[in-house]
Amino acid sequence: MPSPTPRTQLRRYPVRGSHDRDVVNAILDEGMVCHVGFVADGQPYVIPTAYGRSGDRLFLHGSAASRMLLHLGGGLPVCVTVTLLDGLVLARSSFNNSMNYRSAVILGVAQAVAEPGAKLAALRVISEHLAPGRWEAEREPSEQEMAATLVLELPIAEFSVKRRGGPPVDAPADLDRPIWAGVVPLSLQPGAPVADERTPPGLQPWAWPARRG
Amino acid sequence: MPSPTPRTQLRRYPVRGSHDRDVVNAILDEGMVCHVGFVADGQPYVIPTAYGRSGDRLFLHGSAASRMLLHLGGGLPVCVTVTLLDGLVLARSSFNNSMNYRSAVILGVAQAVAEPGAKLAALRVISEHLAPGRWEAEREPSEQEMAATLVLELPIAEFSVKRRGGPPVDAPADLDRPIWAGVVPLSLQPGAPVADERTPPGLQPWAWPARRG
Repeated sequence: MPSPTPRTQLRRYPVRGSHDRDVVNAILDEGMVCHVGFVADGQPYVIPTAYGRSGDRLFLHGSAASRMLLHLGGGLPVCVTVTLLDGLVLARSSFNNSMNYRSAVILGVAQAVAEPGAKLAALRVISEHLAPGRWEAEREPSEQEMAATLVLELPIAEFSVKRRGGPPVDAPADLDRPIWAGVVPLSLQPGAPVADERTPPGLQPWAWPARRG
Repeated sequence: MPSPTPRTQLRRYPVRGSHDRDVVNAILDEGMVCHVGFVADGQPYVIPTAYGRSGDRLFLHGSAASRMLLHLGGGLPVCVTVTLLDGLVLARSSFNNSMNYRSAVILGVAQAVAEPGAKLAALRVISEHLAPGRWEAEREPSEQEMAATLVLELPIAEFSVKRRGGPPVDAPADLDRPIWAGVVPLSLQPGAPVADERTPPGLQPWAWPARRG
């Protein structure tokens, strides 16, 4: 499916948009939580969840009892959005305040990944996306755990990106107002790792990957 | 409307749920971006945007030409979700990895705030939510800017909260695996403010509020 479609064409601020696959991939790879939108009985629901990407496929996972995943695995339309908040943009007028951000919106239909090898590979993709290097160290899922887990796959085919960067854009008449204007950068940052009670002393904590700042 | 309703009742991990208004308010007040879900032609869309809260009302705003806002102002069902990612939970088995988070999901129908005084007050609420103290310093919206802005109000009436905190929960048989397990705390953090070119030297940048860590 070509992108953009009429459904992913940006009407406003097209300069902030992109349908470049590298751009959408970079956003997906930097984010940690997506927001999944689906419709039940005419009501939209938006639920946060983890995800992972492999090539042009996005994977979601969760309990096999999850209402959302069962719903989506049934072939209903879904929207998956990943948003990175990059900064607060403070202008000289309230109207021109803004935010710097990058967001990716993917539309499509998800399907369950049932074949055991593909399902395990998808779980590894999600795990390595969130915590690179942990998969090898941790115990792999048991047969029972695999059965309790549902994995969905969504093609990254119909998507759009929207983003804003840079300083505030004030009206010329406002530029001499004597207030501070600019950007407060924002990013998701790790704190000091907290080992649980059963971690042997002296073990190095898992290291936050550099690609997430 | 009482909360929970059948639509906001959590089926899985009810211990992680809450319908306490103070809990939902705390999440809304700490977050900066919400994800708005709506349905058009049967397709769900999830779009990130700013918001503000006053009492039991949530405000959204944007361009009067915004497809999403026009759509929602027409009385369609909406879902607004705010998610705070608090940490990566690294267990000894892949299956027990998790995330610490707090999320608030609000269902309802939004309506446009048309009366000029109420509309200006709502814009102030959103501005003060994102950047407390800026409203007084910045130029207020002009009549033309007000006309170009659409403000929506959503009652915080039908909502649910889901959250996870604390260390990983491993299976007893996994506890002796010799790997580090615990939590990597995560939070949205401000960087050093970047003044724009027209800010006079010597002005103090806007100060990030303590309530956001």
